[in-house]
Parts: sequence; C-alpha cells; structure tokens
Amino acid sequence: MKKSFVFFFFLVSVFGIAQELMSPNGNFKMKFYLLEDGTPTYQLFYHNTEIIKRSKLGLELKNDTKSLLNDFQLADSKTASFDETWKPVWGEETKIRNHYNELAVTLQQRQTDRKIIIKFRLFDDGLGFRYEFPEQKNLVYFVVKEERTEFAMTGDHTAFWIPGDYDTQEYDYTESKLSEIRKLFRGAVTENASQQQFSDTGVQTSLMMKTTNGIYINIHEAALINYSCMHLNLDDKNFVFQSHLTPDAKGDKGYLQAPCVSPWRTIIVSNDARYILASRMTLNLNEPCKIEDTSWIKPVKYVGVWWEMITGKSAWAYTDDVQAVQLGVTDYTKVKQSPKHAANTKHVKEYIDFAAQHGFDAVLVEGWNEGWEDWFGKSKDYVFDFITPYPDFNVQELHKYAASKGIKMIMHHETSGSTRNYERHMDKAYQFMKDNGYDAVKSGYVGNILPRGEHHYSQWINNHYQYSIEKAADYKIMVNAHEAVRPTGICRTYPNLIGNESARGTEFQAFGGSKPNHTTILPFTRLMGGPMDYTPGIFEMNISKLNPNNNSHVNTTLANQLGLYVVMYSPLQMAADLPEHYNQFLDAFQFIKDVPVEWEKSVYLEAEPGYYTTIARKDKNSNDWFVGNSNGLKERVSEINLDFLDKGKKYEATIYADAKNADYKTNPQAYTISKQKVTQKSKLSINTKIAGGFGISIKEIK
Amino acid sequence: MKKSFVFFFFLVSVFGIAQELMSPNGNFKMKFYLLEDGTPTYQLFYHNTEIIKRSKLGLELKNDTKSLLNDFQLADSKTASFDETWKPVWGEETKIRNHYNELAVTLQQRQTDRKIIIKFRLFDDGLGFRYEFPEQKNLVYFVVKEERTEFAMTGDHTAFWIPGDYDTQEYDYTESKLSEIRKLFRGAVTENASQQQFSDTGVQTSLMMKTTNGIYINIHEAALINYSCMHLNLDDKNFVFQSHLTPDAKGDKGYLQAPCVSPWRTIIVSNDARYILASRMTLNLNEPCKIEDTSWIKPVKYVGVWWEMITGKSAWAYTDDVQAVQLGVTDYTKVKQSPKHAANTKHVKEYIDFAAQHGFDAVLVEGWNEGWEDWFGKSKDYVFDFITPYPDFNVQELHKYAASKGIKMIMHHETSGSTRNYERHMDKAYQFMKDNGYDAVKSGYVGNILPRGEHHYSQWINNHYQYSIEKAADYKIMVNAHEAVRPTGICRTYPNLIGNESARGTEFQAFGGSKPNHTTILPFTRLMGGPMDYTPGIFEMNISKLNPNNNSHVNTTLANQLGLYVVMYSPLQMAADLPEHYNQFLDAFQFIKDVPVEWEKSVYLEAEPGYYTTIARKDKNSNDWFVGNSNGLKERVSEINLDFLDKGKKYEATIYADAKNADYKTNPQAYTISKQKVTQKSKLSINTKIAGGFGISIKEIK
Repeated sequence: MKKSFVFFFFLVSVFGIAQELMSPNGNFKMKFYLLEDGTPTYQLFYHNTEIIKRSKLGLELKNDTKSLLNDFQLADSKTASFDETWKPVWGEETKIRNHYNELAVTLQQRQTDRKIIIKFRLFDDGLGFRYEFPEQKNLVYFVVKEERTEFAMTGDHTAFWIPGDYDTQEYDYTESKLSEIRKLFRGAVTENASQQQFSDTGVQTSLMMKTTNGIYINIHEAALINYSCMHLNLDDKNFVFQSHLTPDAKGDKGYLQAPCVSPWRTIIVSNDARYILASRMTLNLNEPCKIEDTSWIKPVKYVGVWWEMITGKSAWAYTDDVQAVQLGVTDYTKVKQSPKHAANTKHVKEYIDFAAQHGFDAVLVEGWNEGWEDWFGKSKDYVFDFITPYPDFNVQELHKYAASKGIKMIMHHETSGSTRNYERHMDKAYQFMKDNGYDAVKSGYVGNILPRGEHHYSQWINNHYQYSIEKAADYKIMVNAHEAVRPTGICRTYPNLIGNESARGTEFQAFGGSKPNHTTILPFTRLMGGPMDYTPGIFEMNISKLNPNNNSHVNTTLANQLGLYVVMYSPLQMAADLPEHYNQFLDAFQFIKDVPVEWEKSVYLEAEPGYYTTIARKDKNSNDWFVGNSNGLKERVSEINLDFLDKGKKYEATIYADAKNADYKTNPQAYTISKQKVTQKSKLSINTKIAGGFGISIKEIK
Repeated sequence: MKKSFVFFFFLVSVFGIAQELMSPNGNFKMKFYLLEDGTPTYQLFYHNTEIIKRSKLGLELKNDTKSLLNDFQLADSKTASFDETWKPVWGEETKIRNHYNELAVTLQQRQTDRKIIIKFRLFDDGLGFRYEFPEQKNLVYFVVKEERTEFAMTGDHTAFWIPGDYDTQEYDYTESKLSEIRKLFRGAVTENASQQQFSDTGVQTSLMMKTTNGIYINIHEAALINYSCMHLNLDDKNFVFQSHLTPDAKGDKGYLQAPCVSPWRTIIVSNDARYILASRMTLNLNEPCKIEDTSWIKPVKYVGVWWEMITGKSAWAYTDDVQAVQLGVTDYTKVKQSPKHAANTKHVKEYIDFAAQHGFDAVLVEGWNEGWEDWFGKSKDYVFDFITPYPDFNVQELHKYAASKGIKMIMHHETSGSTRNYERHMDKAYQFMKDNGYDAVKSGYVGNILPRGEHHYSQWINNHYQYSIEKAADYKIMVNAHEAVRPTGICRTYPNLIGNESARGTEFQAFGGSKPNHTTILPFTRLMGGPMDYTPGIFEMNISKLNPNNNSHVNTTLANQLGLYVVMYSPLQMAADLPEHYNQFLDAFQFIKDVPVEWEKSVYLEAEPGYYTTIARKDKNSNDWFVGNSNGLKERVSEINLDFLDKGKKYEATIYADAKNADYKTNPQAYTISKQKVTQKSKLSINTKIAGGFGISIKEIK
C-alpha cells in the first residue's frame, strides 16, 4: 500500500475556483466547481469526452433552515494517490488492484459554519465519490429529506433500465432511449409480491447506458451501509438523473449522526463493454474484510428442493387443511399431510443422493419449517420461528445422512418481510443451524415489510440486512439474502455474504418467463454490486411438463443455461432443475458438474449489453479454464481467441453449444457437445442462437 | 372453580330480541340488543339506575367492503356463571375472588357470513366485555381501521381526565364536567418528551367519573395484549365516549388473525368510591399466571441513585466533553469525567451502605452505562448497548459489595424509545444482569419511538413491551417498565411485571410540580390497571436546595409522602429522596423502613377521588397493619374506625401526621409522630392538610 500526494490543478473559471483530478493512467479527468451561489458541482471526462456534464451535489435536510445544497466556500482541498493490491476471500480473481487518485474538498457553509467533505476517487475505470460529514459543532444529528446528487448525461443515451421501486428489483430490463422511459414505464412495471414506484422516470441502479458514440456508462453505488438505497429519477427534458433515496415510514430518507459518510456514488465508463464487467471499482470502494478468520467461508455448488415448488409441481406448505397458522398452537401432527409437500425426509434424501453422486457440495431445502400455509400477504408478524420443522422433515436424520455422504445442508429462512420477528429469532435460528450442521442460509424477504410502512430498501431495513450478515458472521454462517437490497460490494468487507438475489432470477422463468436477453444485461447491472444467486441450470423449458397448470416457458436454450455458470459470476451456484431432468441429459450436465465456483482469474472476451457476453475464467484449483456465453436478441457467431491459455500447454476443450436447429422457444434442448484439442494459439468460432449460448471446459492435458 | 349455566332473560323490545344478564348479587343488570339494522348494542344498570345508555358495539375494518358494525343477526347466545378464588403471587390481598355471570352472544353478519362473539362478564362491581373472533372461513386476517365501541353516559358527569395522547400518560389530572373538557383540553396538555394528541375531547383510560347522583364510574381495559391501546373520544354534545385506538405508522389500528380476542373493556361502578379501589375486575379479566415457578418473584423496597439526577443536582452523563457518542468508538477512558456523574462506584457504595443500614432490599442506579451524553431527542437507533459501564462504575466490585451487605442491585435499561435496538441487545443485557446479580430491571422509553412513525401505545410497540416481559421471565428477571403502555392487569398473568410508571410520577415534582391532589386521583385511574412505581418518599420539598437552578417545589407535605407507601399499592416501593434528607428526619423515615411491600389484605377506609384516600393494609408476614392517607384539595379530618384489627389483640399505633402548622407550600416538613395503644374498638381522628396525609403503623403488642 502506498499513499502519496499527487499533482492536481487549480483552474480559474467564470464559475469560481475549480479543482481538476486525473485518473492514474490519465484516461479520466474530473472537475470540481463551486457555482457562484456556493453550490458544489462536478464534471467527468473520459478521453477528453464529456461523460457527466456539470452536475450539482448536495443534500436537502429536514426541519433545517439551511440545507446542505449551497452557500459553500472551499475551505480545504487535498489530493492523494493510492495503489494497493488485495486478495479477496473469493471472487472473479485472486488479486484485485485498487488504484486511484483522490480529491477531497472540504466545503464550509458560510451561514451555518458547517463543513462537509466531498471525496472523489478517480480510477482508471471511472469515478467514485461520496459525502463525508466530519465531527463538528453545527452538524451533528440530521435528517436527510433527499440527497440531491445529479448525474447530468450528455445526450439521449440508450439505457438498460428497470422501474425505480422501493420494494422490488425483480423486473425485466427495458432497453430504450432515456427519452423513451416515460412512455415505456408503466409497461415495464410487472406484478410483484411487494412494489411501490415513485416516478414514471424513476429507475434503479446499477443503471447501464450506452452513448451514440459507443461509450458505456454505468451508475451505481458502493458500500451502502446505514443509509437509504439510491434510485435515479430522470429529468427527461435535460437528461439529468437526480438521486432519489428510499423513504422510511414517515417519508424521511435518512437519519445520520456525524461523523459519518454516505455510500459512494459510482460512474464506471469505457468505450469497450468488457471493461465495465472487468471493473473492480465497486469492491475497491468498500472497506477491507472485517472478518478475521475467513477459513469457514467457502464457495458452494448446490442443488435444492426448490424448483419443484417454484413451478407449482410441489408445495412449500405441509398441509391444505390449515387456513391460518398459529405457531406453537397449530398441531401439524394432527392435520393431513399434502402429497405435494416436497420437504419431506425421504424426498430430501433423494436430493442428497443426487448431490453426492454428482459431486455437489450442498442441498438447499425450502418449506421445511412450520408456517408456510399462510406465510404470504397476511402481514403476519409471528410468521415463522425458523427452528420448528414440519413433522415429515427430520432435521437430525437428514444432517446425519447428508454428512455421511459429504453433503452440507443449506438452511432456508423466509422472513415474509417480517424483520422484527426474524431478529427476535435470529440467535436461536443461527444456533439451530450450527447444531444441525448448516453453515449457509438462504434468507428471503418476500412481501411487504414489517414494521409496516417501511420499505425493502429504506435505511431502517438496510440496517436489518447488515445486522443479519454481521450476526451470521458471529456464528460463522454464510448468507445468501433474497429480496434484500441490491448489493454494493459489501461482500468485500463481509465475505460471508456469498450471494444475493436482488434481481429477477430464474424463478421468473416459471412465473411467465423473462426476456430472452435477460442474462446478457444482468452482468452489467445487478452483478456490478456483487454475486447473484441466479439459480441457473434449467434443462426442461416446458414448465407445463412439471405442472400442467403452469404454462410458463423458460426463455433460453439449454446451452445458454450452461454458459450462465461462467457468465453469471457467483461463489454460490445452483443446479436448479430437478434431478430427473439432469438424468435425461447427463452429457450436458457434465459441464455443471465440472464447472468450479472458485476462480483464479477472469478474462472478458466479448460483451455487449442486451446482446452477448462471453467470459473465460481459470479454475483456482487447477490449470483448467471455463468459458461461458450468454447470447441475446440476435443469432450470432462468437469468435473466441484462446490466447489467455498458458503458453506451451495443451488442452482439451469440450464445447457445449446450441445445435443448428436449436430455438429457445421451439427446440431449446437441442445442443451439441464437441471436443477438440486447443492451445494458446487456438481460435474458436461458435454459433449462438437467440437466448442461446455455450459453455466450454478447457482441461489441461498432462 | 365452578362453571355452570345460569338464568338469563329474553326480552322482546321494539328493537328486536334483547338479552339480559344480572350480576351474581343482582346489583348490576346489562342488556344486549340488536338494532333493526343489525347493530349490536349494550346497556348497563346499577341498582336499576342506568349507567351506560344504549351504546353501539363493533369494529370498522380497513380495505373491507363490510365492516363489523351492523347487519348482524343473533346466531347463538350462551350464559354461564363462574366463581373461583385464586392466589396472586403478590397483591393487595392474598386471595382474590373472581365471580361473574357471563353472556356470550354469537353474531352472524348476514351479507358476509362472518361470525363474532361479544362476551360480557358481569361482576358484582361492574361489567367487562370483549370482542372474540372465532376461527372461520370468511374472517381470518383483518385490519382494524377503528374500534367503534361506545360508552354512552347518562349525563354531564364529573371526570378526572388526562388528555388522550399516543405517546405520553404523564399529565396532571383535570377535574371537570364532561362538557368542559373541550375548553380545558389545551391547557391540560403540558410539555412532554414525546406526545401526540388526536382530539380536543380525547381522554385516556382508566377514566374516573362521578355522576351528580354520587355514582362512581370507571372505564378502562384489561388484558391489552397484541392490540392497540384504547383512548376515549368524547362526543360532548351527547356525552358519548367512542373508543379510539392508537394508530401505527400507517394510521392503522390493528392487524388481527382469527381466532383472537380484543382486550376487555371494563366499566366498574359503585355508589361508594372505596369499592372502585377494592375492585379486582381488571385482574380477574386477565389470564391466570403463565409462569410456572414464581419463587424468584419478590416484592422490593429500594433506594436509588436517581433523584439527584432528576432534580439536576447530578447527571446521568459521564462527561460534558462528548457531543455525539458512537458506542464502541467513543473512548470514555480518554475524556474528562464530569464531577456531576453520580453513578460512580464510590457514590453507589454509599447508597448500598444506606440501604443495608436501613433494611432496604435493593439499590437502583441510573446513568451507569455508556451513551447518556446524547441519548435523548436525537432519534438514535444504536443509542445504548445495556452492558457497557462507564469507566467509573465497577459492576463486579459493586455486585460483590452489595451482596456482602445483603443488598440487590437494580438494573436500569433506558431505551430512548429505540425498541429494535433494545430487542437486539436484550438477551445479552438480561444475561449480563444474571451474571452480575441483578434480578430486576427498570426499563424506560423516553422520547419518540423507533421504528419511526410508531407510537408508545400502538399494537406494534405494545407487542414489544410484552416481548420484554416474557423474555425477562425466561431469565427470571422482574420488570418495572417506565413510559410503557399503561397496565391492564397483565401482572396477573406475568407477575414478573412488578411495576410500571405509565403516569405522572414523583419526578414531575422536580419538573415544576404536580397538582396537590394528584395522588388522591391516581388510585382511581392509573392504579386500576396495576401497580405504579410512583417513587414516593420525598422529604425535601424545596428542590432549589438540591439544585439552585431548579425552582421546583414538591407539592405535598412530608406526612403525605409517608401515606403514599400504603395508598399507592405497589410490590415495588422506592424511598426516592437522598440519604442525607432521610438522615435529617430519621424518626419519620422509620415509617418507610417499617412499611412492608407484601400484604395479606387491604381495607379501603375512606375514598373520594381528588379529595382523599385512606387505606389500611395488613402485613403478609406479621399481624401488623399499616394505614396510609393522601389528602387532596381541602383540609380535612380523617375519621378512622380500626374495626379491621383482630378481635382481642392489642396494638401500638404510631401516627405520622401533618403538624398543625404544616402547609404543603410553606411548611411541608412539619409533622407529628404520636403513639397510642389501640384495639379493634379504637377510632382515630386525624387532621390532614391540603396535599397532606398520614401514615400509621399498627404493631401488635405481644
């Protein structure tokens, strides 16, 4: 680690004094200005092209005669340079370089004698900045009415957006011009278990855009801790995004106590979409790992008793006879078991057998605990206790059985959004896990939040997710939180957060389907903040075969599903389909069995949001490589240069690709498997269908 | 216990079918009618005098086309009789008779085919009724928009009321006609740490009234569990009270799941105010004790490091140098200790010495833990951790020291209203108590509630108080919750709830003073629901002697303070003043030393709300009796007949009374102590001043 002062420039402009900062390699330049009325602004250039026009910075406070918006003068200005390489506990690569130049401007508000610092970090892949509120007399406790950060675009860019919403992120992405968002907005809002929009031009981060000049711009946030999650509200006349924080039950956006800081606002920019995916800015803007012993944190490949419930083939609920559960009162031993209840000991053993047979690490089981008969939509406070299994689920027996086969069980804690109830039971629930051999939990927050009036992404509830992660770490438990706030790189600091859903996952393929190019966008949006438990691996696309009442169709080819194991980076990967479907295609299933969940490095071969993504990754524990592709809206030939392979080594590549007659709608299971010898000099040319893709395993020949 | 069917009457009236029920001794009669539109109503008579005019019953539901207000038909009607005598763990007497006749009407709503039961229990001292929602198909989960229970008065009664408020109960009582409430309302609203009124004719329960015919009527509720606290909103043209529940952050009044019940609504009536005090209806309407082993629940007489902070002589905060605390970050060992910080080891030992010397059970210490520098009014989430003492408070040393002298320490958990934070730390905090010899906790909820938008008496927060009580019971900890919702007899079910504040306590005597007759009203209002930690025993009425900047005056005589130990029943009694003040009046202090906190029985000798209350109680552990009087607005001679004493036994009475020249304002410390031999045939005549009173110990001569 080295930290040293670097040059920066003072410019005198018509707007007053300006500071200028360059990125380490000079690609980026940012300017900080104070307007005449003392409003702070910033501007961002990439290769001398303006990316962010002069944009205002500041916060509006509640019950405060003077907000933190203007009347500032420059009290101090400091620059620094930082260059450090650190090792993540898990990740897309084993070493990450954190290299930036920093500008910290201290602003003094004349009338109030308050100080804030705006800290800019300019990397070679973009800009991060945040508000810092140092300890001082005149600004101690304050309530944020709204953060007023602007991101002024230079034109009517193409955006890949989902509707801004306080309670869900599970929308399909819309590709449109910024000017088209308003008219497309209502159509983009599809039904969800809990949702509340705030503006017909409100969108979520991470927001991916592309200019007419082919520059890619990604806006998100990093290190969202003790703060409300940021949306972007577009002024679509001027193409200016304004930050819009998620409110609490009273409509307030945040309660802060100085000294404190806001999350980082990030702008990642490149003229090559691959470098957006390669950016580590989000992680770099988070604090180093705070867990001392991380030996217990291990990537996981798993199967689960889950897809059969999602499709409606099976059920979470134990019985159809109980209308309204009273935990501790309802006697499940006296009611009729539903034949659809999947989380029964016998059936779970079949999954354990399958997992052991095929080399998986773990088995997730949902619907194992009392309460599923009326868990959703009832605003139930005491909805689950997280420790009481249904009569047909023998925790101890399954623990022993799984352990005897080298399989771990993955716990499931659906909270139904009832956060107080979860916190009340958390210690016992985590201890129950440890007592019964579980060291990872999938948590869920489906439905409206309790306490009522709060939202999934408000400061109060973000604080709950963080509490859960930290408490889980105390118990050495890994967390995979579904429906929680979108990740912002916190997994660097708390690497036991091994996954999140926080976007439209594979489950929606059984809820009517997702767009065919969905997974060509997710790496540029949702995954910018951290890994997603996307649950790929669906081999049977016709859901009515599982459940005659469900006419959903999985909008991808089978080969695409394989490619996702590489494209959608996660230390937690599921093979989501039923064992019986894998048994029908064991040759294709071999790729899922082979693909690792720990990587040494990643190479981004091809990328265009909405259209294609091809990534190569090297196994952490061997010299093998794996390549994955997800293809979007157009059939395409993927041209791959294998120059990332080790010089002089020989490999055998096994290519799992779309068959010529493959079609995601009519013939999704048509794939080919071919093998060929390859070296560093090889080039591959692979045809990919709409919503198609491929997976390649490249194994060293010794 | 005996439960049998009793007679009841069907009456045919112009309004349809009516049911009539008599109390066991025939004093009371209640009628249930269904109006023509199917609206349920009730009516109450006492000695054939109408007490409650025909009053409507029902609930308004949210998002429901058909509320539970009308369109009902009588589906079933059952009566029963109940007579049982039970033994409280502690109380005003060792045996309590629970004797009532019951009428349960099952009402079927025609249009919706929903059923509710309204259950009436008619005792010899009044009526209790509640709504019951049995398990059924068409009413499972529902949201209460408002409970629409009416209490229609027969005239413009005199009431002893405090303003209805969602966040505080700490008001002085106003005596006025019902018709005068509106004009007096704003004047009755005094400043509080957290407050929100809802109507200029809204008042709180327990509400004490008196008719022009000398009938006393008390309205309150019993068994307030998983429901919102009820206020009464007066239609002052018709003298009809309507129930008004405390809303949650969204304005909703309650989330219910059938089967469930509402709290009981209670109407206690007598033509003799003493029988209002003697009523056990509130307790009887609560469930029997749910704690199996109650051996650890013991009444407590205590002193505390508290009054010196309340008066401003000392401080809770450790230092004046920290503006904003960050728990775990702020290093108290590096800041300057304030000379006013009272909770220091040396000073606490002085209290322990004093407690041991004078036979007290325990010492309370406030301000012992980190966080008091900025605990109030900042809406701080993580405001206390409840386990980290200031550097000058040695928990282990004090525990040992206290134990060596036979003294228990009482823990203090101020939550600052931050309920989630308290729940997060509760297990550790309670365990910390057990590890360090504390078995009772005074908890506090000063200031606005977190989660923000909730109120002190909403269902969500009532649920928190209940959670705290039940969890404390798991740890065998006794709870004395301040600022929590007013009690409703729950101490029968959870007798570890040994006290509550939940009204204007003695502290207000140091905040500008309370009305001179305050403690002649409290037994008829606040104490109807359960014991109050009123913290009597102030001997120095001139607060400026403790703190020159505090000009408050304690508006009672010293003799009145002694009387309160008997008048204000509580198993938890404090001697609240400073040891140095007791040392000045050791002869008077003897009464506080002598007075027990466990009683065998109680005799209500004289009572008139606002004017006087005289109660005799027999020690549970001897044949001694103690009499207490609190006098109100008029100087008066209390005439006491000692016929409650055992026949044939001889006693020595020590009478601590106002001196002739005593005056609560100018000469409050003027008292006399006289002794005389008494028997069952004795009569005493004792002069009491305005805000005066007396205490008498009557010890058997063996």
